[in-house]
Amino acid sequence: MTSSATETKTPTSILWTKTELQIIDQTTLPQQETWLSIQDLDTACEAICSLRVRGAPAIAVMAAYSLVVHLRQLPQMPFNVFIGEVRSSLDRLRNTRPTAVNLFHAMNRIEKLVNAFHDGLPQEGMVNQIQELAEEIHEEDRKLCDRLGKNASELIPQNARILTHCNTGALATGGIGTAFGGFLTAHRQGKNIRVFADETRPLLQGSRLTMWELMKSGIPATLITDSMAAQVMKKGIDLVMVGADRIARNGDTANKIGTYSVAVLAHYFQIPLYIVAPSTTLDPDITNGDLIPIEERQPDEIRHFGTSRTAPDQAEVYNPAFDVTPASLIIAIVTENGIHRPPYSF
Amino acid sequence: MTSSATETKTPTSILWTKTELQIIDQTTLPQQETWLSIQDLDTACEAICSLRVRGAPAIAVMAAYSLVVHLRQLPQMPFNVFIGEVRSSLDRLRNTRPTAVNLFHAMNRIEKLVNAFHDGLPQEGMVNQIQELAEEIHEEDRKLCDRLGKNASELIPQNARILTHCNTGALATGGIGTAFGGFLTAHRQGKNIRVFADETRPLLQGSRLTMWELMKSGIPATLITDSMAAQVMKKGIDLVMVGADRIARNGDTANKIGTYSVAVLAHYFQIPLYIVAPSTTLDPDITNGDLIPIEERQPDEIRHFGTSRTAPDQAEVYNPAFDVTPASLIIAIVTENGIHRPPYSF
Repeated sequence: MTSSATETKTPTSILWTKTELQIIDQTTLPQQETWLSIQDLDTACEAICSLRVRGAPAIAVMAAYSLVVHLRQLPQMPFNVFIGEVRSSLDRLRNTRPTAVNLFHAMNRIEKLVNAFHDGLPQEGMVNQIQELAEEIHEEDRKLCDRLGKNASELIPQNARILTHCNTGALATGGIGTAFGGFLTAHRQGKNIRVFADETRPLLQGSRLTMWELMKSGIPATLITDSMAAQVMKKGIDLVMVGADRIARNGDTANKIGTYSVAVLAHYFQIPLYIVAPSTTLDPDITNGDLIPIEERQPDEIRHFGTSRTAPDQAEVYNPAFDVTPASLIIAIVTENGIHRPPYSF
Repeated sequence: MTSSATETKTPTSILWTKTELQIIDQTTLPQQETWLSIQDLDTACEAICSLRVRGAPAIAVMAAYSLVVHLRQLPQMPFNVFIGEVRSSLDRLRNTRPTAVNLFHAMNRIEKLVNAFHDGLPQEGMVNQIQELAEEIHEEDRKLCDRLGKNASELIPQNARILTHCNTGALATGGIGTAFGGFLTAHRQGKNIRVFADETRPLLQGSRLTMWELMKSGIPATLITDSMAAQVMKKGIDLVMVGADRIARNGDTANKIGTYSVAVLAHYFQIPLYIVAPSTTLDPDITNGDLIPIEERQPDEIRHFGTSRTAPDQAEVYNPAFDVTPASLIIAIVTENGIHRPPYSF
């Protein structure tokens, strides 16, 4: 635990002081806010594999910094041995989460830089260049989140009551988040908002992570179960704002399971639904949402809670991780480039 | 544990053999199916207070039987002492759950019978009469459930895929249940149905109790989180069938929180929504749903799971126990008297 870390007002999941790397251990939230010091590659790889850090942009930033931490500790060595060590470290980091696209992008950018190094360069100078690139990757994500947040905040009026689903904040990105960045920006603009956070079953990213981030940021927030959305909308919600995992060319949007239900309810209650996501989420190769594959996860995510059984052991379970909200239910899609309205054609 | 009890095909929460009373301890479901033998009034009252037996009709039946068990154990005593003992036992049972209307009705019926007793009647004969009344109360509830189930099953076609919410089965009644009775009846008619059970946060009556009852009855069943309803409806649901806690004169229906969300989704996907409830659920004094008070429960039901914290400790929570589905979203209300269609006027 580092008190300077816990006192930060904007939640952040990655702290980099140029000499030290710390991450919040997301597996212990919200029971405990534990900051892990990443002092070697083993700890870094374990943290990624065990989901202590999660969210594709956050993983990429943390992996880049952990490479720097590792390289700083190496003794002086011949150029070829050093380059070999960098490459094998990049491979180890790439192999932690084989589907995290941002992680590959970041590792590939570092590899491209390293490919341009030549014998005779001082080892410290090469590490410094890698560090600068790692900081650049982080800074780019931070700026991307800031632009997303600013654009999203334009859709949030004074005194807005906002409903959101899942987690889209600093815990998943290197910056202030996507939809969450919109809430934070509006809050900082003094708009007096209140966010209603769906707990987001089965993995409870809403209650465990989003509520924690909202409270850390001082944003008035109310936790509800996913099943309470209609009741809350009837009592008064001004807008729904969520993130996205993948957006098809026609605007159909895959996001955490439950988003589709929220979208239908918003439509019924005539409440606008906005998607906030970086333009890299748009997939021009996919013409519509029916072509987005839906990952099905383990039944025990629903049949058990921690060590408690919450359903009969042999209960048949349907556990899709995502659903696809049709573009017809989406009022606007916000990217770092602006606010896009239908008909979408990315 | 009694193997004869666990082998019963229709789930039942109360077993009465004229010499012995057993109930399923619902607090240990689905982790363990424990049958509690009720041999005295203390055990009976503790079981009701601790929600080992729950559901207003089930409580009433169990209380009536437990009085008989108690009275059978009394030594021979003067008439007035015996009547005093009956009356104080009725009071103790009444005080276990002060809001359970069915419990009062049952205790009052027994008291009325006892008021007609006169000195000179053999003590065993009086206990026999009370036992006959207890069995009559049970039998009435069983028949009521059968009629509800038969009427509800008329709305369930061959090969129906049904979505339900919360628990409406034998665990809550003295018979086969309300909406659950419809599923069971259709299943016994050979209709090849499948029931999708919402887990029903926060108290998980769907995953803990309904899935257990469906599996005990051999009804094909799939467990989902509440947030998956839209995804499941898109893939194909033929009807939604749920119970009710209170129905206003215009058909607006209060039921477990989340029913309103399910009703809006069903409306969007053009899937019929049916309510199944005994006519005693209809409240002619209430003209519409806006007049039904909504109980708000403890925040920790959502902030904690067992001993695990699932949200920050100080998280603000909105935790309504019920919501009100407007009559406009309900295709029919099924009672023991038949299938009622709008405009409702009870």
